[in-house]
Amino acid sequence: MRRIRVTIAYDGTEFHGWQVQPGLPTIQGWMERVVSEIEGSPVLVHGSGRTDAGVHALGQVAAFTIENPIPVENLRKAINRLLPKAIRVLDVNEETLEFHPRFKAKQKTYEYHIWRGEICPPMRRLYVCHHPYPLDEGLMELMAPLFEGEHDFSAFAAADEKDALGASKVRNIYLSRVWIEKDEVIYQVCGSGFLKHMVRMMVGTLVEAGKGNLGREEVLARLEPGFEGKAGPAMPASGLTLISVEY
Amino acid sequence: MRRIRVTIAYDGTEFHGWQVQPGLPTIQGWMERVVSEIEGSPVLVHGSGRTDAGVHALGQVAAFTIENPIPVENLRKAINRLLPKAIRVLDVNEETLEFHPRFKAKQKTYEYHIWRGEICPPMRRLYVCHHPYPLDEGLMELMAPLFEGEHDFSAFAAADEKDALGASKVRNIYLSRVWIEKDEVIYQVCGSGFLKHMVRMMVGTLVEAGKGNLGREEVLARLEPGFEGKAGPAMPASGLTLISVEY
Repeated sequence: MRRIRVTIAYDGTEFHGWQVQPGLPTIQGWMERVVSEIEGSPVLVHGSGRTDAGVHALGQVAAFTIENPIPVENLRKAINRLLPKAIRVLDVNEETLEFHPRFKAKQKTYEYHIWRGEICPPMRRLYVCHHPYPLDEGLMELMAPLFEGEHDFSAFAAADEKDALGASKVRNIYLSRVWIEKDEVIYQVCGSGFLKHMVRMMVGTLVEAGKGNLGREEVLARLEPGFEGKAGPAMPASGLTLISVEY
Repeated sequence: MRRIRVTIAYDGTEFHGWQVQPGLPTIQGWMERVVSEIEGSPVLVHGSGRTDAGVHALGQVAAFTIENPIPVENLRKAINRLLPKAIRVLDVNEETLEFHPRFKAKQKTYEYHIWRGEICPPMRRLYVCHHPYPLDEGLMELMAPLFEGEHDFSAFAAADEKDALGASKVRNIYLSRVWIEKDEVIYQVCGSGFLKHMVRMMVGTLVEAGKGNLGREEVLARLEPGFEGKAGPAMPASGLTLISVEY
């Protein structure tokens, strides 16, 4: 048996997210179909985590177990030949059998891109969120590092995940920064892990701060364990890209 | 009566080119539908020229005549509200009544992008042509300027246009250059006008030269009035963008 790790880039626009859903195109669904075809029997593909419908990736990581002795370079080519061009396997590596892309992940990096110009260029529209309305970007830059450190992110979880009892909502954020590049506000966050919708709600909180609707104390309050309510809103999926997963 | 000039950007991926075609989505079709709705009666929209299905634009120019007294800034916003996000009007200006975007055009600039890396990034795939096979890019750089000057481009016209008798196929090319930027070979051409498929066949000729299939003399021969045959092949539409039209 061989444990194979793959690094995957995708344009999430036309997919219903990472996770397999019967009858709907998903990244995991495509990976399982293609790897199973190469292996000649059903193969499960595990990801480092789900991405929502419309979210993109430059470096998602996944793994699967096969018996096929095909060299890794040929495997990469064979998979890419069978995948739609919106999904590309960038890298294929042999791992030890116990490698699990979710449990072994040490940190993940996401980027969120907001297009600030009045007109969103057609060729950028699928990869940004268009927000041409007034925002104090300086305030967003100031607030972004407030997320850094270990916090309870219960308020930043999607409703269905938030109600799940037991599982810890504490995550460690190593870096959380906003900067401006030409017509875009870019948010980059690196952390030990992320809850469903968490990054999109963090950006939603920063946008509310940029609108003047939330001050420093109110942003910090959302990170307190007892916070009643929902941080957010969750920003649109199109602006979000999973940049990398580190092990 | 007011003569209105608009500058338009579009992602050509999902359109059947510029020109109106019954029952198919085209840029001109969308512009006419939207401007007619604002005017309250049918309005024809003339472009600086057609772009093929799948070709993009950063600065296509078009014009139409309306009676509506709406200020140009509001007109731009009204048009953009009704257009799909893959088409954006960047600029609206009042012109003299005799302004015609095709007959008054002095020069046009196109760019063609070839992705050279083995894997084409999913987020670039719609805006480049993927050509990961061996090419001598230095030869392409050397050959590109051979197109500059006044030449008979009969060999670089689509079959249906080539057979049209009478119309001159002589065009003046002011600039024709190849350069490399990271993983892309970029071709830029600026000229008095272009025949159908002409830029894509010029790039096809340069790619053939880069493969070593055509030498300098054979490229020059294709520009001779008596050349029997077809320059080309025409490269895929996705790599081509109409950058600007000058008046």
